[in-house]
Amino acid sequence: MTARISLAEVQAAAARIRQYAHRTPVWTCNSLDVQVGAQVFFKCENFQKAGAFKFRGACNAVFSLDDDEAASGVATHSSGNHAGALALAARLRGIQAHVVIPRTAPPVKMAAVKAYGGIITTCEPTLKSRESTLKDVVAKTGASFIHPFNDARIIAGQGTAAMELLDEVPELDLVLAPVGGGGLLSGTAVAVSELSPETKVFGAEPANADDAYRSMKAGRIIPSEDPRTIADGLRTSLGSLTFPIIQERVENIVLVSEEAIISAMRYVWERMKIIIEPSAAVAVGAVLNGDLDISGKRVGIILSGGNVDLERLPW
Amino acid sequence: MTARISLAEVQAAAARIRQYAHRTPVWTCNSLDVQVGAQVFFKCENFQKAGAFKFRGACNAVFSLDDDEAASGVATHSSGNHAGALALAARLRGIQAHVVIPRTAPPVKMAAVKAYGGIITTCEPTLKSRESTLKDVVAKTGASFIHPFNDARIIAGQGTAAMELLDEVPELDLVLAPVGGGGLLSGTAVAVSELSPETKVFGAEPANADDAYRSMKAGRIIPSEDPRTIADGLRTSLGSLTFPIIQERVENIVLVSEEAIISAMRYVWERMKIIIEPSAAVAVGAVLNGDLDISGKRVGIILSGGNVDLERLPW
Repeated sequence: MTARISLAEVQAAAARIRQYAHRTPVWTCNSLDVQVGAQVFFKCENFQKAGAFKFRGACNAVFSLDDDEAASGVATHSSGNHAGALALAARLRGIQAHVVIPRTAPPVKMAAVKAYGGIITTCEPTLKSRESTLKDVVAKTGASFIHPFNDARIIAGQGTAAMELLDEVPELDLVLAPVGGGGLLSGTAVAVSELSPETKVFGAEPANADDAYRSMKAGRIIPSEDPRTIADGLRTSLGSLTFPIIQERVENIVLVSEEAIISAMRYVWERMKIIIEPSAAVAVGAVLNGDLDISGKRVGIILSGGNVDLERLPW
Repeated sequence: MTARISLAEVQAAAARIRQYAHRTPVWTCNSLDVQVGAQVFFKCENFQKAGAFKFRGACNAVFSLDDDEAASGVATHSSGNHAGALALAARLRGIQAHVVIPRTAPPVKMAAVKAYGGIITTCEPTLKSRESTLKDVVAKTGASFIHPFNDARIIAGQGTAAMELLDEVPELDLVLAPVGGGGLLSGTAVAVSELSPETKVFGAEPANADDAYRSMKAGRIIPSEDPRTIADGLRTSLGSLTFPIIQERVENIVLVSEEAIISAMRYVWERMKIIIEPSAAVAVGAVLNGDLDISGKRVGIILSGGNVDLERLPW
């Protein structure tokens, strides 16, 4: 099966979003390197606009629309970061964003959408309610639906983070990204496999939401049903566009326990003095926990985001 | 009264610590700039080794010792960051650090001292207990006492942060640093007043520990007695070396309420995605709260540290 997203699309996305997105820094942590016996390079998407890598894809999608399409605005459903990212990208283009959010989403993420001028419609936290609510919103507004991950423009946009990472830190042995719906992981896999074929790409997934792991084993998409994990950005399951890319270009999926996620999140807060959200900590947990053999290697990790509800910390 | 610390001493400190200390980054925050109507540049000493600017002074003091003095180690008393910083600096020189810490200090700060190989002796949280315990330790070990702030080597070392800030961001209208014992503020004042005479220096102090403010008004040191503030690094009062420098070279002291400190800390965590401790948030609070007229100005803020006990957050 051939991948449906090309490096050229990632490069076009990079050019399209350059004037809007941050080129985030790549950081290292000496005490972590000593502890894991490797050189780890963190691509800090927690410092991205709207607080997560999601802004890359959303920005690429919004600025890919022609003027007629754009005039009716954009719409999406999202548990959080994609919603804020889309709202900000829409505001930067001067168009309206309509966002369907489950009423159980972290308040901090809802507040971000509002702050960026997005219009929120809440739904029940079920697939059915989300889809019917979104359908209503699109019918009413004529907005273009921008799926949070199963969209070529989104995947290409997310791939720009790994592109920048490789540009700054060449000759990585492996790159690790968290996987939920697979937008970040598939975009990362396209960029890395084309730009640095000898670099292996791994996904990091909560053991409690292991649909990507099971889908890879089975060779077909096996969705998770109502997974319970603190990594709220990773509760979604792979999509029809992201799965084949991951199947073809990702080495393996590493499962990370809830304890390891929380402990990695705290490690990064305490040692690196930066705020990462649980979803970002999943990839760090995969490394700190020793589940992946990285001894002596050069490892890139995409720290996917930093949007945390400070009222509800897991310790 | 002439200042007792010269720019040359700050420059010598910079040369001495260069190979050990981080040159920390200077960051900006667009949403904060919009909110306060100014350009604010944050010198991120929360990313300094041992998590605070204190490493600069401690490192300068430790590497100022001649080999004979160094052989007996160093000793200090500290509520926290100076202790960790001194322990790390001593380890880098391969000598022993003895630290007297009140038993009420945040556990995370004690843990840091131990992790860096420092030997801890706990005392009661009173001046008397601290001094007698320290005296015993010095008598027993022959270690050189390195005061947390009232020491020319410490003051010169702390001044290197502002030196780097001015090097990277010239033509600042004012520089703001938190004030406890005054090591950071006096070092900052020496560096700024000599290198950029048109830049004004302000101190930011918790209203609940306002000894610097009162001392400036009175023209003599008026210590705080058992001040209660969340900014645990700023509970100490000015010393005989720091006060005259501050009196001569600091424009004014801005008082910041506990509510404003907590709110500023949270603002930085949520918007900038970086961890700062309450003492660092005091200077941010002075700006966010509108207590200082910075409209249209270029403002430098020393974010003094990022050592926070994540078990005891103030919200």
